[in-house]
Amino acid sequence: MRAAVMRDWELRVDEVPDPEPGPGQVLTRVLACGICGSDLHMLRHGAELRAREVELADEFGPDPNALRPVVFEPHLDTVMGHEYCCEVIGLGAGVTGVSEGDVVVGMPVALDADGLHTVGYSNRYPGGYAELMVLDAALLNRVPDGVPPRLAALTEPLAVGVHAVAKSRTDQAHAAVVLGLGPVGLACVAELKVRGIGPVVGADFSSRRRRLAEHLGCDVVVDPRVQPAVAAWREVDGQRPLVVFEAVGVPGMIDAAMRMAPRDTQVLVVGVCMQRDHIHPMSAIGRELNVQFALGYTPDEFAGSLTKIADGAVDLEPLLTGSVTVEGVPGAFADLADPEEHAKILVEPDGTSGA
Amino acid sequence: MRAAVMRDWELRVDEVPDPEPGPGQVLTRVLACGICGSDLHMLRHGAELRAREVELADEFGPDPNALRPVVFEPHLDTVMGHEYCCEVIGLGAGVTGVSEGDVVVGMPVALDADGLHTVGYSNRYPGGYAELMVLDAALLNRVPDGVPPRLAALTEPLAVGVHAVAKSRTDQAHAAVVLGLGPVGLACVAELKVRGIGPVVGADFSSRRRRLAEHLGCDVVVDPRVQPAVAAWREVDGQRPLVVFEAVGVPGMIDAAMRMAPRDTQVLVVGVCMQRDHIHPMSAIGRELNVQFALGYTPDEFAGSLTKIADGAVDLEPLLTGSVTVEGVPGAFADLADPEEHAKILVEPDGTSGA
Repeated sequence: MRAAVMRDWELRVDEVPDPEPGPGQVLTRVLACGICGSDLHMLRHGAELRAREVELADEFGPDPNALRPVVFEPHLDTVMGHEYCCEVIGLGAGVTGVSEGDVVVGMPVALDADGLHTVGYSNRYPGGYAELMVLDAALLNRVPDGVPPRLAALTEPLAVGVHAVAKSRTDQAHAAVVLGLGPVGLACVAELKVRGIGPVVGADFSSRRRRLAEHLGCDVVVDPRVQPAVAAWREVDGQRPLVVFEAVGVPGMIDAAMRMAPRDTQVLVVGVCMQRDHIHPMSAIGRELNVQFALGYTPDEFAGSLTKIADGAVDLEPLLTGSVTVEGVPGAFADLADPEEHAKILVEPDGTSGA
Repeated sequence: MRAAVMRDWELRVDEVPDPEPGPGQVLTRVLACGICGSDLHMLRHGAELRAREVELADEFGPDPNALRPVVFEPHLDTVMGHEYCCEVIGLGAGVTGVSEGDVVVGMPVALDADGLHTVGYSNRYPGGYAELMVLDAALLNRVPDGVPPRLAALTEPLAVGVHAVAKSRTDQAHAAVVLGLGPVGLACVAELKVRGIGPVVGADFSSRRRRLAEHLGCDVVVDPRVQPAVAAWREVDGQRPLVVFEAVGVPGMIDAAMRMAPRDTQVLVVGVCMQRDHIHPMSAIGRELNVQFALGYTPDEFAGSLTKIADGAVDLEPLLTGSVTVEGVPGAFADLADPEEHAKILVEPDGTSGA
């Protein structure tokens, strides 16, 4: 099959073997798969991150309490893409409760005799930047009839925001600032507003992304070059306890969030910075900040995100700013470097639906 | 009066004007004042910290929500020392409820017509590395009869630990690791054990400090060069949710605490690192850590700490590893660079009581 392949930390389109479903697995064809910023980070900083992990393992040895997925080898083929919506086209041995023709989404993990694998960061389980995928039947969520696959593919990024808000201390009494209005920040905005939390102040350099945040109910949006987000919060509120969502994920942003945060604020880190970073602890010590790191989601949060999309509780359609076939993936990675133009680009192997 | 004076980020013993009590204030003579690690940090890193604060103020402007103490000018005299026990020897205008001869401790702040001042980091209010101090009458806690001033002077550092534990998420279900068994770490150990939390694992390079932790009830102590603290916790527990107290306060320690912490752990930062620091966010993201920064204490926590000392709920006597007069303060600062030898050195202006 055709696939966008990462090998030696470079991305190219190539022919790879079709995956074959094992026991309890299904073969699917990819209908739509969102390109995630984490994949851009992995391509750019994966080597650095990998070196750090080796260093840590040398220093501390394996953590016996950790759930350790099987790690991919960077010199072998890895097909990324973990925000997929697929159609089931074949059933492995022993699969029940799933039929050919079902349209499904699912948490991107696979369990087999060799352990837990992260779909999309695995040499064995190709992700959605390809024509075909093998998925664990037990982890599938059936997409209700009538829900477009291109919207269902946003279940995963929405779940990231749903989890971040759940992991934060926000409740009805809180206000929120969201730094970075890419797909992750927008998912946080959407979930905050679904929960009735506000005011929510969103900050991004991109006017297009700020408009998307407003579409999702963000109460105030700012260009941080014009007005700092916390200053905007002071204008419209300034009283409620605040949670600052850091959804950018580049070095310096945690420090920036800490230095702008008022006393007793929680900084919820949902951006994924894979590099060495710097902080000034006194910013956080003097104001007794709380910094909560969040990653991923629970099965319930994932299923609930699909329901929110299917029910129309959140309208994520405007986030879809581009669509490419598998051949177009490397170009889309390049395009995503310009945040003014894009939120989410979908890979649609059977032909683009337009954006 | 004689005082150890910080001027241009250097410490010397000099003659300074006697302080005079204003309305609502009392004049006291210092009986005992502990030397705090924060004072060593301030002497060494205050210039860097000050430059950073100026940079931040330029970038963000003043935080209208912040309580901003009057800041000391480094080129003018500052007498540090905020862990004091004093005897009242004179009353300012309007003071009631305090008598000459009362032995007192108090939170190190002073409020006057010009605002809030931090006693010990103020050009106006000398701290306890001197013969005399002026204190706000409203903020005094009377030391019960029979409690030695040298023990009462430990109220402030104990309150730091009491506050850190209160600010953490520890309850009876938790275990704790305490990194650094200087006075702050030891105060955390003492409070954790007063609350019946355990097992508590303490880590320090110094065998003397480890013995002090054991005296305070620490369940396990380790030399981290021999066994990592978290490995020791796994041996004796490994199941309870964990809070890691970072009580060292030098660059790299927050990162070290984050990389050793198991999933969902809280890192409680009570060490005061005044320098630029580095972290690897992925350590914290992957395991969804929570980092809570803590500073200071509430009036209730301060008063409660005095009660714990007076009642004998904690026996801090063995922490007193040295005593000097005002003339000996610069030498004591140098001695504290060797943590093998010392926990807390007291300044006793009227003559050392021995240690």
